[in-house]
Amino acid sequence: MGREGAGRFLIAPDPGDARLTRAVKGVDEAGASAEISVVEERPLTIFLNGQEIVTVMTIGDYPEYLALGFLRNQGMLQPGERISGVDFDAELETVVLRTDGETSYEEKLKKKTRTSGCAVGTVFGDVMEGLEDLTLPDAELRTSWLYSLAQAINRTPSLYLSAGAIHGTVLCEADRALVYMEDVGRHNAVDKIAGWMLSNEVSGNDKILYTTGRLTSEMVIKCSLMGIPALVSRSGFTAWGVEIAREVGLTLIGRMRGHRFVCLSGERRLVRDAEPAHVMSEERRHQRKGSRR
Amino acid sequence: MGREGAGRFLIAPDPGDARLTRAVKGVDEAGASAEISVVEERPLTIFLNGQEIVTVMTIGDYPEYLALGFLRNQGMLQPGERISGVDFDAELETVVLRTDGETSYEEKLKKKTRTSGCAVGTVFGDVMEGLEDLTLPDAELRTSWLYSLAQAINRTPSLYLSAGAIHGTVLCEADRALVYMEDVGRHNAVDKIAGWMLSNEVSGNDKILYTTGRLTSEMVIKCSLMGIPALVSRSGFTAWGVEIAREVGLTLIGRMRGHRFVCLSGERRLVRDAEPAHVMSEERRHQRKGSRR
Repeated sequence: MGREGAGRFLIAPDPGDARLTRAVKGVDEAGASAEISVVEERPLTIFLNGQEIVTVMTIGDYPEYLALGFLRNQGMLQPGERISGVDFDAELETVVLRTDGETSYEEKLKKKTRTSGCAVGTVFGDVMEGLEDLTLPDAELRTSWLYSLAQAINRTPSLYLSAGAIHGTVLCEADRALVYMEDVGRHNAVDKIAGWMLSNEVSGNDKILYTTGRLTSEMVIKCSLMGIPALVSRSGFTAWGVEIAREVGLTLIGRMRGHRFVCLSGERRLVRDAEPAHVMSEERRHQRKGSRR
Repeated sequence: MGREGAGRFLIAPDPGDARLTRAVKGVDEAGASAEISVVEERPLTIFLNGQEIVTVMTIGDYPEYLALGFLRNQGMLQPGERISGVDFDAELETVVLRTDGETSYEEKLKKKTRTSGCAVGTVFGDVMEGLEDLTLPDAELRTSWLYSLAQAINRTPSLYLSAGAIHGTVLCEADRALVYMEDVGRHNAVDKIAGWMLSNEVSGNDKILYTTGRLTSEMVIKCSLMGIPALVSRSGFTAWGVEIAREVGLTLIGRMRGHRFVCLSGERRLVRDAEPAHVMSEERRHQRKGSRR
């Protein structure tokens, strides 16, 4: 697929963007000088209607989507709330988001939950808020899509491939990868996708969320709040992540490597239409370095 | 090394502890039933002198060390402050830490920074606080120690090896791995080590911190605040992590795989005393799955 694959994305990583990486000089094990490409990590302070909410560490692309998605996934912006402005100031490293009405952040700021793992971030208020009445749609999830998506994503030029030390999350529809975000924090990559969806009024109903990181409670909660019925990862699970996925009826697929995967929740959506023999030969041709973390 | 290696630890992972993992049933790609071991992820709410500070998601071992190390690494406990009690309540999922004097958390609670990557967590107050006057000691760091440590750590039975989806951090002294903590959040693993050091009045001066995760700003800051002059990882760097390490004079080694590594800060401590030929043969015998993330 290669470049054609990348060309199909609405948003793909831009490893050539000079603002996102830096060449850093050092030495290797033998004392020889080594210069490697290292991802940037910048503070971005998010304001909502004049109130400072949080400072996140990010690679710095798509600050507006990040702020919008973060506030939405924290329940600080209600669905349907009218946003009157999103202003990014590169010098001050701030994003100010303004709404027409009152927002309900005061109460939420009092309770902070520090979430786990690579997904880690801050969840304000009740972490399960908004999940009680959630119904995820009965969309189907074809195994042939999963294999095509994994192959397209793994072959797309990315900061991961050029510099490492970064996480990726991809919004997909059937066998098409639409929006591929990367960030030093995996939760940021997901929030940027949520911000893009909100800005473009894109529904999660017929989408699949693919992530490189672990399927922790935070990832499962975010995906569910985004209305996306399927979450797929190369990495493993946590027990609470699985529990929440089962409660909200999310299809949860992990440890996806080549033709193999494990589904621990929402199997009813799975349609096994792929030909394993074809998948395995593709797999041998295009291997990506693996890890269980 | 195997069991003998593990026997040298003061604290080693306990993958047999039934509270830390759960067997979860699902299906695989072919529809066959699959049962896998999945790590637990539980909330733990930390109180300081009656004030609720934060809820962290953790596997749940060593809650007292986690609370102590978290509060210390956030600057909410000053060095030398007398702790009059640390009480864990398993049912309420809380740890209450009491000090004799007044603590300075009120101001810090106002400013929150959501840090990046796998190291992600919440940093209250000024993230750089306490780093201005820091001087890390001129300890030496032998390459032979690095290779021995990596081999001992990789061969020690762990939740990572039995269930995956977890991060590890190890406090080391010369070629000896002392305390090996794992957690769903890498920052928790580091905080548990900080809590153990504080409880046992162990200095960081002659120590090395080994981590499986990325060398983000948060990891570099925590390691420096713990007074440990060397931070080593199998994973990569972020640019800000490197910058802070150079400012405080921390030795920062990443991408360590077998005999290879890159040192981007504090090279002056490195003593290259290992025999590469020996290391490479060891490496072929005991390989651990790799990843650049």
